[in-house]
Amino acid sequence: MKFEIKERDAAGRICRFTTPHGTVTTPNLMPVINPNKLLITPQEMRNWFHTEILITNSYIINKHERLHKEALSKGVHKLIKFDGAIMTDSGTFQSYVYGDVAVDPLEIVAFQRDIGSDIGTILDVFGTPDQTKAAARQGIGETVKRAKASVPLKGEMALACPIQGSIYPELRQRCAQQVSNIDADFFPIGGVVPLMENQRYTDLVKVILASKKGLTPAKPVHLFGAGHPLIFPLAVALGCDFFDSSAYAKYAQDERMIFYWGTEKLEDMSALPCSCPVCSNHTAAELKELERKERIVELAKHNLYVSYEEINKIKHAISTGTLWELVERRATCNPYLLEAMNVLRIEDHKSFLEYYEPVSKPTALFYTGSQTIHRPGVYRLHTRLFKRFRPSSNQAVAFPEGKKPYSAGYEEQIKKIRKKNTQIAILIDSHLGPVPLELDEMYPYAQSVFPKISDIETEDAATALFDSFTKNMDVLSWKGNSTLTKLKTSEKEVDRDAQRISAVCDMQFGRGCGDVLLGGDIAVVKSKKTDKIRNVYCNGRHILSMRASDGLFTLKLDGAKILHKKIPFPLLRVVVHDDAVPFIKEGKSVFAKFVTDCDEELRPLDECLIVDIKDQLLAVGRCLLNKTEMLSFSFGMAVKTREKIT
Amino acid sequence: MKFEIKERDAAGRICRFTTPHGTVTTPNLMPVINPNKLLITPQEMRNWFHTEILITNSYIINKHERLHKEALSKGVHKLIKFDGAIMTDSGTFQSYVYGDVAVDPLEIVAFQRDIGSDIGTILDVFGTPDQTKAAARQGIGETVKRAKASVPLKGEMALACPIQGSIYPELRQRCAQQVSNIDADFFPIGGVVPLMENQRYTDLVKVILASKKGLTPAKPVHLFGAGHPLIFPLAVALGCDFFDSSAYAKYAQDERMIFYWGTEKLEDMSALPCSCPVCSNHTAAELKELERKERIVELAKHNLYVSYEEINKIKHAISTGTLWELVERRATCNPYLLEAMNVLRIEDHKSFLEYYEPVSKPTALFYTGSQTIHRPGVYRLHTRLFKRFRPSSNQAVAFPEGKKPYSAGYEEQIKKIRKKNTQIAILIDSHLGPVPLELDEMYPYAQSVFPKISDIETEDAATALFDSFTKNMDVLSWKGNSTLTKLKTSEKEVDRDAQRISAVCDMQFGRGCGDVLLGGDIAVVKSKKTDKIRNVYCNGRHILSMRASDGLFTLKLDGAKILHKKIPFPLLRVVVHDDAVPFIKEGKSVFAKFVTDCDEELRPLDECLIVDIKDQLLAVGRCLLNKTEMLSFSFGMAVKTREKIT
Repeated sequence: MKFEIKERDAAGRICRFTTPHGTVTTPNLMPVINPNKLLITPQEMRNWFHTEILITNSYIINKHERLHKEALSKGVHKLIKFDGAIMTDSGTFQSYVYGDVAVDPLEIVAFQRDIGSDIGTILDVFGTPDQTKAAARQGIGETVKRAKASVPLKGEMALACPIQGSIYPELRQRCAQQVSNIDADFFPIGGVVPLMENQRYTDLVKVILASKKGLTPAKPVHLFGAGHPLIFPLAVALGCDFFDSSAYAKYAQDERMIFYWGTEKLEDMSALPCSCPVCSNHTAAELKELERKERIVELAKHNLYVSYEEINKIKHAISTGTLWELVERRATCNPYLLEAMNVLRIEDHKSFLEYYEPVSKPTALFYTGSQTIHRPGVYRLHTRLFKRFRPSSNQAVAFPEGKKPYSAGYEEQIKKIRKKNTQIAILIDSHLGPVPLELDEMYPYAQSVFPKISDIETEDAATALFDSFTKNMDVLSWKGNSTLTKLKTSEKEVDRDAQRISAVCDMQFGRGCGDVLLGGDIAVVKSKKTDKIRNVYCNGRHILSMRASDGLFTLKLDGAKILHKKIPFPLLRVVVHDDAVPFIKEGKSVFAKFVTDCDEELRPLDECLIVDIKDQLLAVGRCLLNKTEMLSFSFGMAVKTREKIT
Repeated sequence: MKFEIKERDAAGRICRFTTPHGTVTTPNLMPVINPNKLLITPQEMRNWFHTEILITNSYIINKHERLHKEALSKGVHKLIKFDGAIMTDSGTFQSYVYGDVAVDPLEIVAFQRDIGSDIGTILDVFGTPDQTKAAARQGIGETVKRAKASVPLKGEMALACPIQGSIYPELRQRCAQQVSNIDADFFPIGGVVPLMENQRYTDLVKVILASKKGLTPAKPVHLFGAGHPLIFPLAVALGCDFFDSSAYAKYAQDERMIFYWGTEKLEDMSALPCSCPVCSNHTAAELKELERKERIVELAKHNLYVSYEEINKIKHAISTGTLWELVERRATCNPYLLEAMNVLRIEDHKSFLEYYEPVSKPTALFYTGSQTIHRPGVYRLHTRLFKRFRPSSNQAVAFPEGKKPYSAGYEEQIKKIRKKNTQIAILIDSHLGPVPLELDEMYPYAQSVFPKISDIETEDAATALFDSFTKNMDVLSWKGNSTLTKLKTSEKEVDRDAQRISAVCDMQFGRGCGDVLLGGDIAVVKSKKTDKIRNVYCNGRHILSMRASDGLFTLKLDGAKILHKKIPFPLLRVVVHDDAVPFIKEGKSVFAKFVTDCDEELRPLDECLIVDIKDQLLAVGRCLLNKTEMLSFSFGMAVKTREKIT
């Protein structure tokens, strides 16, 4: 069962999951199929919604004499007439709803295997939100025991082992760690339906985060029972890959329509706020006039159209690097969901999410409201700024946020200041906190869009950052000539290009890396059109290229050689197994399964040095994964190699 | 040309606009049809998007020999093969784009009339955002002159007179006042395309507000040239009724797809974040592989599907009373749009918008972020609270926001407090500011959903309101027994039901109205199920019913008689013309054209007294319009009569 990351944003990802019945692209939705009562056939789902995977219940099939027989003789794919991937559930949810179920935990695993399920689920113990910690702990114990006992029975089938632990984060995390160590293939986060039913999104977010922290990142994670699109964007941003929807059918039976912002009764509708084929081909009045049976099918279709639409919106957001924007926008649809966003501000969670956050995105950072400043990427920016950046002087002049790039916007004023003091630090007091002028072309400082007036929370956070950054500095606000007169005098020559290059290098590669890279005769090639730095040469060798899109450096092989020589192991390194060395030497990219070690500080899309286990430099490239991912994944690329040692 | 309000929310409205070619429901979108190059035929538009109205350019038809001839002989409806309503433009925009156009201002009006246009536009003078105030003033002068000269030519055609005035609010407002006094039928807000092209939404909002302030509310308002759904919700909330879209075709030609959050290039798409029929029937890859001509048609279809979808979302939001929620959510899609929301906080605009805001809504008030507290409805709530409500004592105990209803949530604590002091005021320190306990079932206090932790801006605003409300009061925060010991002692008997009824009456009808209504022997009937007040009797007569949905009173005829006797004219009155008296006496509702005067303080959905010009009480009812609307509209209902004098 191959599972590999293809694209990523936030802690979410687009992955390819290979099953015996086709490849499934995540994030994805599995419609629940009840073979006893089909509203929409699997074939119709394939045609209308491009359904790649669905879920049905082996407990129901097992219990039903004819279905049981047919499933065993023909296989579950023929039974429900679907040639895509099929996941089966085991009866756990039924045990929660109806009390105990008369099924043997191991028999039901064997049955799922025997009917040819692509992903079979163990019979775990459903943990309810109201159970005591002791009961939750006991439930986990039994779940893990059953998971271990189920492994030998799985055969070719991928085995799904749900994470339980009620609302206790430490239990969720421990359960996740325990099942991660089992030879299982797929990890549902179980026991969350009661949280979603009661809109306890704050608890849900805590449960997902705790589970993800304990889980290996290398296997698919399924938010079991989540079928309402309202929760999809946030759940994906936290690292969930799969959802399953019986909601489409349940709400349809109840004559309710799903929307990304909630659920509404058909009877309350006049204008249909949707353009799916169902809503484009009917008015609300027409839907109300249909025969009930037909109406329910149309509503179920609508519900699946909008659910898949939200999955596609999420995929699109990941591809364009705008998943947090989508999450924040969706949070405004429901005050409880908005409240749950506060969980992400907790230091520990922020730092967990930051670890998965790419260092650059294809799209600018867009402000959506008071949530934006709390994003993991903004947290990273400040962590790196405080740890890695050194101001050119402890006297500074501060400008209010103005036109971008700030160095052009304030060109005249800056000239005057530097005429008097060449070394003075220049800071912009921006919505993203202090921006040293040297970094004003770097992502996300240059690639962010804030309104002139944002909100008080954002203003306060930016001010606090500015104050903290400058607490040992002497900062003058720009007020024209009166500021100039207060400046110390210094006419020492400063190479502005070198200053900028060094600052960006420090932010990207670590404190001091700028000095290391520029320790020679520097030549800079600039764009004729924009006058921006493009290529940097040291002693005649091309060491860096600056990308126009994000103002960050591409590390060239000659630059990598310098860093490799001067910066000690394991910094900036990705270490590959000897078996992979010949391939890397041919310029091939690094596959995760060959990575034996990696610098903990590297993040997705950071530049890195590819070395062998003796720390000999093999190539330079760009990380696609972080350390935990590189060491966990068996499939997919870990580093995109750019230049090999020749 | 009939134009009447059917439903409303914010300053937006769902209206019926009757034309010789069918009734159009607003808000609505007119796709631009260029008869020279049709991407989608009007008949297809009718079939696919239920297009009721479209717009084409009489200047282009006039200039083109064959079209000119055919239009005059067959009429414009046959020319473009559409039997719905057709608006024609005059060449103003062409004059802006290409410089002067060779067309006579009056000839083009006559031509539009002669080809049977349902709505013809005068040739106004396009005011650009960068023109001087003097130039803008001159442009308005010419526009108004041409408008006046065009009126005698209009015949059966509705005449559209655009509002110009560049970005100068006072000129926009003056121009709007001047054209409102002309016998015109339709008011486009012109000259706004350059603002939208440059995302100058702050200026756009100022222009719309200034124009609306000058315009009669009784005629349709068209945001001329606005075709991107991003701006639709806010524009409707400010009172725009029509949009026109050439964007669908222009963006399609450019291979771009419109979404409610912006525009994206097809080439950048992998997952299509949409479920319209085009996106449901094609993958992004398939769209890219189509022949260019076919692809452009499909993209144009997509663009119109999503544009109409947004119109339907707005209609749905108006029907459910959630238009501000939609506006605030959409504002998170674009920082410049979010910035434009700040304009709505200016006192003068808030008070203008408050005038149109219904006093109750079918759906709870949902918090979406730091914008919510600035809504006109929240502003009204506080205006009425500060003006109309009298605390029961100047000593108060304050509770933090807890479970709703607060009186149930804090039942035990309140008992203890009142044991010691029966008269003490009890306040909840809520996200909506101070909530006197007597009002805790009233819209929107009870019917609002805030997260426990909102944002600092909201918290600050709520605190400021609380402090301002209690500035002359002695407020103790509830801290259990320590608070109790600080209380004064008072054991005067207080009738809690009377206190609550009186407080809600004061908020709804005006300060002192509670005392007036309860000036007799009071009996209260409560719901057996909820123990909430349902009906109120005074001296055996049914005077009030409390609605379970919003905790506001329905005024019964016997209550109305008391208020009418004790509260002086013109308070709470809607005055009807003698001609309408016999109809009102039969229990018929009040049509706007028969209203001769109205209390300035009445708002949509306020209870009101219907009187004749001698201030004799005829009936009691519920306002559907405010004073300005009642006096301006010639069509539609002004007051829904509930009970007539017998």
